[in-house]
Amino acid sequence: MKIVVQKFGGTSVAGLERMQRVLEIVRRTHGKGYKVVVVLSAMSGETNRLLSLAQQFSKEPDAAELDVLATTGEQVSVALFSMLCKDAGLKARSLLGHQIQIKTTCDYTNARILDIDAAAMKALLQDYDVLAVAGFQGCDEHGRLTTLGRGGSDTSGVALAAALKADACEIYTDVEGVFTTDPNICDKARKLDKISYDEMLEMASMGAKVLQIRSVEFAKKYNVPVRVLSTFIDNPGTLVSQEDKSMEYVLVSGIAYDKDQARVTIYDVLDQPGVAASIFGPIAEKGILVDMIIQNTSRDGHTDMTFTVSRKDLDKTMAILTAIKADVGAKEIQFDTGVCKVSVIGVGMRNHSGVASRSFAAMSREGINLLMISTSEIKITMLIEDKYAELAVRTLHEEFELDKDPGERKVGEV
Amino acid sequence: MKIVVQKFGGTSVAGLERMQRVLEIVRRTHGKGYKVVVVLSAMSGETNRLLSLAQQFSKEPDAAELDVLATTGEQVSVALFSMLCKDAGLKARSLLGHQIQIKTTCDYTNARILDIDAAAMKALLQDYDVLAVAGFQGCDEHGRLTTLGRGGSDTSGVALAAALKADACEIYTDVEGVFTTDPNICDKARKLDKISYDEMLEMASMGAKVLQIRSVEFAKKYNVPVRVLSTFIDNPGTLVSQEDKSMEYVLVSGIAYDKDQARVTIYDVLDQPGVAASIFGPIAEKGILVDMIIQNTSRDGHTDMTFTVSRKDLDKTMAILTAIKADVGAKEIQFDTGVCKVSVIGVGMRNHSGVASRSFAAMSREGINLLMISTSEIKITMLIEDKYAELAVRTLHEEFELDKDPGERKVGEV
Repeated sequence: MKIVVQKFGGTSVAGLERMQRVLEIVRRTHGKGYKVVVVLSAMSGETNRLLSLAQQFSKEPDAAELDVLATTGEQVSVALFSMLCKDAGLKARSLLGHQIQIKTTCDYTNARILDIDAAAMKALLQDYDVLAVAGFQGCDEHGRLTTLGRGGSDTSGVALAAALKADACEIYTDVEGVFTTDPNICDKARKLDKISYDEMLEMASMGAKVLQIRSVEFAKKYNVPVRVLSTFIDNPGTLVSQEDKSMEYVLVSGIAYDKDQARVTIYDVLDQPGVAASIFGPIAEKGILVDMIIQNTSRDGHTDMTFTVSRKDLDKTMAILTAIKADVGAKEIQFDTGVCKVSVIGVGMRNHSGVASRSFAAMSREGINLLMISTSEIKITMLIEDKYAELAVRTLHEEFELDKDPGERKVGEV
Repeated sequence: MKIVVQKFGGTSVAGLERMQRVLEIVRRTHGKGYKVVVVLSAMSGETNRLLSLAQQFSKEPDAAELDVLATTGEQVSVALFSMLCKDAGLKARSLLGHQIQIKTTCDYTNARILDIDAAAMKALLQDYDVLAVAGFQGCDEHGRLTTLGRGGSDTSGVALAAALKADACEIYTDVEGVFTTDPNICDKARKLDKISYDEMLEMASMGAKVLQIRSVEFAKKYNVPVRVLSTFIDNPGTLVSQEDKSMEYVLVSGIAYDKDQARVTIYDVLDQPGVAASIFGPIAEKGILVDMIIQNTSRDGHTDMTFTVSRKDLDKTMAILTAIKADVGAKEIQFDTGVCKVSVIGVGMRNHSGVASRSFAAMSREGINLLMISTSEIKITMLIEDKYAELAVRTLHEEFELDKDPGERKVGEV
């Protein structure tokens, strides 16, 4: 049995006309001899509508009940799409997270997939041409409904493809694929034909917003090649897959940026074992993600600690730090929300040096001051004043000639 | 463990303010030492919104998918209500039809309850003060979602009360109880303190619209006393229960009417065995409910057959009859939509005669012509021109002194 998993996001299912376009894609795939597992999101706006309803009813809505509420969005989508399929002569039915079953942890609103009953699904695929699976949802060991977090339908799609050993996993969205950078701020942004899981993880976490990060982690873990493409434009999109030889010759794949950053500095903390843990432990406990962390060289047994968090978490972070300020011997705590992160990403950096210095030089030419620097094997990240964000992205995009076909670019020193 | 089942309809859960009123009632009950099983409908208007969405997507939507769609309405209600309960300090959670489980037949959009896992619910009631159960829904043996037909949440409530052997079953609605007749057309209508299952069945089927008919049948079968009362007005409402001694002394309990009637007459059909079956068989197969049926005395081996159907079914009925006209030897088929059914209902009729003649005389005094008459043990039904509907109801209400306390009425001949 040949199986394709196709996931369609909220904008692709928002209304009859768009769902008919989805039907067209699904029929075409079925016409090529595939059974099609269609994973659908809630119609765009629906999840937000439901969550704001919950906010009306409770300031801190119970997480388990939030999931009972939120899962209705996808349930509506799959029911309506199955009706369309049947009217078009396809043997189709809907499948909810608890019917499949997609077993998850009990972490309501942010559950992780533990297991999918692939045998049961394959048995159903004997009888049906199309299974319309509600994305984003599962159930825990007690049969209570769970959701996989924002954008979780991507993860549903990839997990189903992995469990079913599908021949292809296609994530349909409202963009044509993954770009070298955000086309909204750089008109020379170029669609990538392929990108590695690791690069995609860096791009996604920096706000490329094409795929949910967790779905990429999942795809990497189970080695599921994922094609990202547009529902509305016929175009092969971008293949997200394991690194291959051809990728190594590309120095830089893309430039990402993230404006949702706040920088926090704690001055003069004691430079002794356990201090970092007593700062970042309480922050992690509150579910706050800390991004760049930098510790300066020590002076007189004291040091400065700087890190970034999402702006929405700043108030909570400051409250925590104020509470532990005395314990860690800190003199002062400062924050700054006028900052932005810009990253140069590429697996090619593993084999080529000089990317960092070329990046810094380019920034310098434009008079952009670097506030923080952090590097990984495949990424160079710079924190800058956020008024320079767009200029920085365009400058780096040009520096690494990302508008050109990879073969035509000049490569850095080896 | 003392258990009360309380069901709240769509108008009782439409929005935060109304749900807070529901919470007040539930808390009061819990405060008296009861575990509360709260059965909720979808917010008023929601089921219609979902069904009209389905109509946009398909002219004849798949029944199983309609149920997947429609069940989201109640799912939203129970999630939101559980949030409210938890914020109010009650241990509460939602329960969906497939979680309980409420096992039903596979008759999508009109399934019947087969079994409820009462033991599992009682185990949950050890841990929780309040279980918010989604009304109207269940699941079939394959785990597919089902619904119980319009107004099915009443049946959910009664069935849960029966399965749990609850101490009370209360159906909260937007009226104060069951009235002697429709207060909208007869301002002397009086709330009944109690009514028997059989009378309620006759009242409900005639459009009293307080309780879903099937829920009353269920209550009768399992002998569950059901109290119908208002969410918004503190008032003991009406107890629907087995007939008791005191009811026998009440000659007439109420006057019902139904304007959704069309009369169909087939002239000169062959008066021979099997003809009635060949007329009503095909009609029943299309799911059309036939109400009053009258066959006149035969002339020359032919007879006239008259019956009533809901107006919405008239076109389908005429099409069926036209197709079989020749087979049953009929000369002509006529229909009339300007008709209305008025019924006098009371278990007291079993022991008292004269109700029929008093009813006919009252109609006659007002110049209302009787088009059809049909009687049962506890009901006399008259078909009249629909322009007389309100007058007929008021006349009969007055004739049997239904505005007075039963003890003060004059009783008919014994």
